[in-house]
Amino acid sequence: MSVVKIGVIGVGNMGSSHVQMLNKGQIKGAELTAVCSSNDSRIEWVKTHTKGEVEIFKDVETFFNESGIDAVLIATPHYSHPELAKKAFAKGKHVLIEKPAGVYTKNVLEMNAAAKYCGKVFSIMYNQRANPLYQKVRDLIQSGELGEIKRTNWIVTDSYRPQCYYDSSKWRATWKGEGGGVLLNQALHQLDIWQWTTGLMPKSIRSVTSLGKYHDIEVEDDVTAFVEYENGATGVFIASTGEAPGTNRLEIVGDRGKIVVENEELTFYQLTQSEREFNSSYTGGFGQPEWEKMKIPVKSDNANHAIIVQNWIDAIIKNSPLLSPGEDGVKALEISNGIYLSSWLNERVELPIDADLYHEKLLEKINASTFEKKQVTNTILDVTGTH
Amino acid sequence: MSVVKIGVIGVGNMGSSHVQMLNKGQIKGAELTAVCSSNDSRIEWVKTHTKGEVEIFKDVETFFNESGIDAVLIATPHYSHPELAKKAFAKGKHVLIEKPAGVYTKNVLEMNAAAKYCGKVFSIMYNQRANPLYQKVRDLIQSGELGEIKRTNWIVTDSYRPQCYYDSSKWRATWKGEGGGVLLNQALHQLDIWQWTTGLMPKSIRSVTSLGKYHDIEVEDDVTAFVEYENGATGVFIASTGEAPGTNRLEIVGDRGKIVVENEELTFYQLTQSEREFNSSYTGGFGQPEWEKMKIPVKSDNANHAIIVQNWIDAIIKNSPLLSPGEDGVKALEISNGIYLSSWLNERVELPIDADLYHEKLLEKINASTFEKKQVTNTILDVTGTH
Repeated sequence: MSVVKIGVIGVGNMGSSHVQMLNKGQIKGAELTAVCSSNDSRIEWVKTHTKGEVEIFKDVETFFNESGIDAVLIATPHYSHPELAKKAFAKGKHVLIEKPAGVYTKNVLEMNAAAKYCGKVFSIMYNQRANPLYQKVRDLIQSGELGEIKRTNWIVTDSYRPQCYYDSSKWRATWKGEGGGVLLNQALHQLDIWQWTTGLMPKSIRSVTSLGKYHDIEVEDDVTAFVEYENGATGVFIASTGEAPGTNRLEIVGDRGKIVVENEELTFYQLTQSEREFNSSYTGGFGQPEWEKMKIPVKSDNANHAIIVQNWIDAIIKNSPLLSPGEDGVKALEISNGIYLSSWLNERVELPIDADLYHEKLLEKINASTFEKKQVTNTILDVTGTH
Repeated sequence: MSVVKIGVIGVGNMGSSHVQMLNKGQIKGAELTAVCSSNDSRIEWVKTHTKGEVEIFKDVETFFNESGIDAVLIATPHYSHPELAKKAFAKGKHVLIEKPAGVYTKNVLEMNAAAKYCGKVFSIMYNQRANPLYQKVRDLIQSGELGEIKRTNWIVTDSYRPQCYYDSSKWRATWKGEGGGVLLNQALHQLDIWQWTTGLMPKSIRSVTSLGKYHDIEVEDDVTAFVEYENGATGVFIASTGEAPGTNRLEIVGDRGKIVVENEELTFYQLTQSEREFNSSYTGGFGQPEWEKMKIPVKSDNANHAIIVQNWIDAIIKNSPLLSPGEDGVKALEISNGIYLSSWLNERVELPIDADLYHEKLLEKINASTFEKKQVTNTILDVTGTH
């Protein structure tokens, strides 16, 4: 296959951005040939913003059956990702889904099983994995330079959102529409990078999520989670959309030093000796192992979505490795679901969580919802500069 | 009173340092006239390291009855502080106690009541309150410049201790000898500064303390605590003696900006508008209030103990205000006790804690202890550079 025919489902904030990217020819080896949307005004937008022959579909079944696409980019609201991906796999299409993989792990695990059965190329839009900064963090850990991990800490409060953001769509920041708040939207990239760089999934989670603390919404906009890992290490993850100016600071402590990523800079404090060795051999009372502070000259790059799309297309054409396999989508979602569940049950939860229990509790939230948005502006937001 | 006659009880690490400070005449208006210690080798040390007429006592009762001192500096092991202070107040002496105020709030509250009844000048060695850096943080908050506090976060893992530190005394890092580990020793200053700068005591605490995680000790050397405040703000406090190189980073977020203290520098991110106002009035979708980043030119000073001793002496002679009133000692101890209790009960605890329950649980720890130190070096450590 020399040119992959791509269809996009969903033309909201992210989908519109992807349509433009493909339409401008920014992805080598890919051609936008079809778009699917049930929204008339978005269809009009597609017509006036694309050149060439882009077929428009209002119905998903027809889109999959008649468009002749090889691959589909799914940019619909969160809940529909697993169902649409399963449909696509059933039709033998390659799939790239926007994050999150879904809202609850139960059907995301089903999606992963379908992907495996189908064997097509499956990726997820974790574009922060393409950021050289986090790639370097991962290298330092996976190569053993940091030593065994003792503690992780990520304060990610730099995704500030004013009330008008939440008022831009009816479905936004509702249990029924999005299934969550800051955890599932703004901070999901960091949840992925947290596990991807360290190679560690939490063993257990205790958390507090605050619902509508800073905004008139029914989901959480402020979260603190404490996790424990299998090796005894601990971690804290803090996210909020109500702080300005926010912080984005990742600290990972190991037996051979410490990594700090803040202000798009990576600092590595490297010990000349393992701390565990120093601890048992030193006899001088106060004292600590020697270390060097190094600013690692790696450029942060906001890692636009095109990198992930290109990587996916390359995997389809050249069979090259995926940076962000779709099956990995369940990991950050598992952490996210675990944080919600711990907060809802007000107790420590073990991972993997009980996927049926989580789904049940989520349905309770949806069914118990009495929240009415006071005003909805129905605005398509410019996502340039966001992740 | 033009010269205050001072007695020192306890000549261990801190007491030795205080004896030398007083002996060198570093405190104006004070004269070291008596020392009390039950340890023969420390008495010998006092004899060879002091000039002038310093009376030596081995027995506390005789010391208080016969030394003719006006004021006493108590630098004995933690548990004895409240009892000795009460004895001193009963004899009409001014008192300065080393931190912690005690090990459990029950008898510290009794000590505070005795201080009030006696009316003598009572201070506690929270010397970090003299650090201009934290004084400025307090000013920024108490003046209202930061606005209402939303979140606090202190990672204080820069008090690294190797095993030999814990092996230097039999009583060190035992439930019976010290009543706690990193929380009660290394991080107590920060617990005090945390509440003193913000003016906020937690309303509730959830925590995990890890016993002997990095050292062969029976008490905790690694702690993570999550707190909630009355106004809805949240906070995290992390302390460890097992990380190198450690972090000391305090972040306080308010409605009008953010304070970060790290690497002995104070940065203030000041919003031009209240975030709450911006949130409700802004209509542009993505966006956040404007802010300025300011490095506040305030010099960090390790705030040696002499400042607190001088302040106490000045309060005795001139009736000037105390920087660190002894009664405040219970505050950090209350937080510390609350963190232990939450961890031991594995549940959220409300402050003020049940002081009787805490004392009971502590006694259980002491009575259940089977820990034997493998080797004890009985070393007096040089505390220069520590807090």
